Amino acid sequence: MTQLGPGRPRLEPRRRAGQTPRAEILDAAAELFTNHGYGNTSTRAVADAVGIRQASLYHHFAAKDDILDALLAETVTPPLELARTLADRPEPAAVRLYALAWFDVSQLCSGRWNLGALYLLPELRSERFARFRERRDELRGHYETLAAAVLAEAGAGAVAGAELLPFRLVESIINMRSDEGAAPEYAGRLIPDAILRLLCWSGSLAETRVAALELARRFAPE
Amino acid sequence: MTQLGPGRPRLEPRRRAGQTPRAEILDAAAELFTNHGYGNTSTRAVADAVGIRQASLYHHFAAKDDILDALLAETVTPPLELARTLADRPEPAAVRLYALAWFDVSQLCSGRWNLGALYLLPELRSERFARFRERRDELRGHYETLAAAVLAEAGAGAVAGAELLPFRLVESIINMRSDEGAAPEYAGRLIPDAILRLLCWSGSLAETRVAALELARRFAPE
Repeated sequence: MTQLGPGRPRLEPRRRAGQTPRAEILDAAAELFTNHGYGNTSTRAVADAVGIRQASLYHHFAAKDDILDALLAETVTPPLELARTLADRPEPAAVRLYALAWFDVSQLCSGRWNLGALYLLPELRSERFARFRERRDELRGHYETLAAAVLAEAGAGAVAGAELLPFRLVESIINMRSDEGAAPEYAGRLIPDAILRLLCWSGSLAETRVAALELARRFAPE
Repeated sequence: MTQLGPGRPRLEPRRRAGQTPRAEILDAAAELFTNHGYGNTSTRAVADAVGIRQASLYHHFAAKDDILDALLAETVTPPLELARTLADRPEPAAVRLYALAWFDVSQLCSGRWNLGALYLLPELRSERFARFRERRDELRGHYETLAAAVLAEAGAGAVAGAELLPFRLVESIINMRSDEGAAPEYAGRLIPDAILRLLCWSGSLAETRVAALELARRFAPE
């Protein structure tokens, strides 16, 4: 029986995904929040699902809000870091926007639980989640800036305000996952391709995709 | 003091939007579900918000699920009725798709509460909401059929699978409302316009819009 971190040794074998107690708590909470509802889940239920005492859970997270905040950060931090890097890169805006959208869709698809489904919780409008909202707004701003640059280069015929929609198309993967029960295979190509078409960008999607995936892989955060 | 429907006369004046006790219950529940969370709201809290006794509420709705189901139906029934009518109309697919998207965005914007934010609730995956899911899937199917017809007519250069996205763009109005705190004015034009551009449809948006709004107004359900 291995003791990882504080608290008494476990009486039971590890039962959750995750290498640390903190990761196990996050995995259990993500499952409960997305499958039973945030309002319906107590920290007691999370502790039970991990197989630890509630007091041990409180060592890692002082309140249920803190667990939610950590889960939400997982969905926004990686694409935001990539977006900040891409903002200063010399590649064409279409390549950078494609790279960001591809990476963001991939990470929204790859988590075990569909955490984006929590974005519409009314709790997120409270002061407690102001920092999360700021970071998601910053990410949205990066999408809008890149999309406006694509429009400025090549978007003859595009609709006024079209720069607002790439971010929305990326987040629609959350609804697809929810409706289909799993992340659709085709989304990692469909959504970035569709974003460029929506902006009336008329270059080669195949070439842009190759360049964008190379760029995303080179600068993607760990 | 007017007595409307069953139950004892009210001790207090009417305090909610709605012409009937049923409508008042739905309005109060919509506010609480969207602002405090479905899991956090009891039927008791709904009755209190209306200013009626819980027993009176149960006369109209046997359980909280039934209130949610009635609210969800309000969001899907009108566009589904219009979609069924449009399916058999002789107008070009681009006009019919524009009409459906415009009407659907308008009704998702016009409700007092952002009910679409409830679509991602885990409760909706249960058998209780199978009928709602079927109807929303049918609506989604109408979007996909119309979009495929637009692609067949005029979508040279469009991305494979693009017919899946108009429905997602329409529902993104729910996220815009949630992020911006109110329905954005421009959405009723931006989203239908962008849908046609996404499908690489190259006709006149201005003419299509005029024809589509006329069609939607002629056949829109009450």
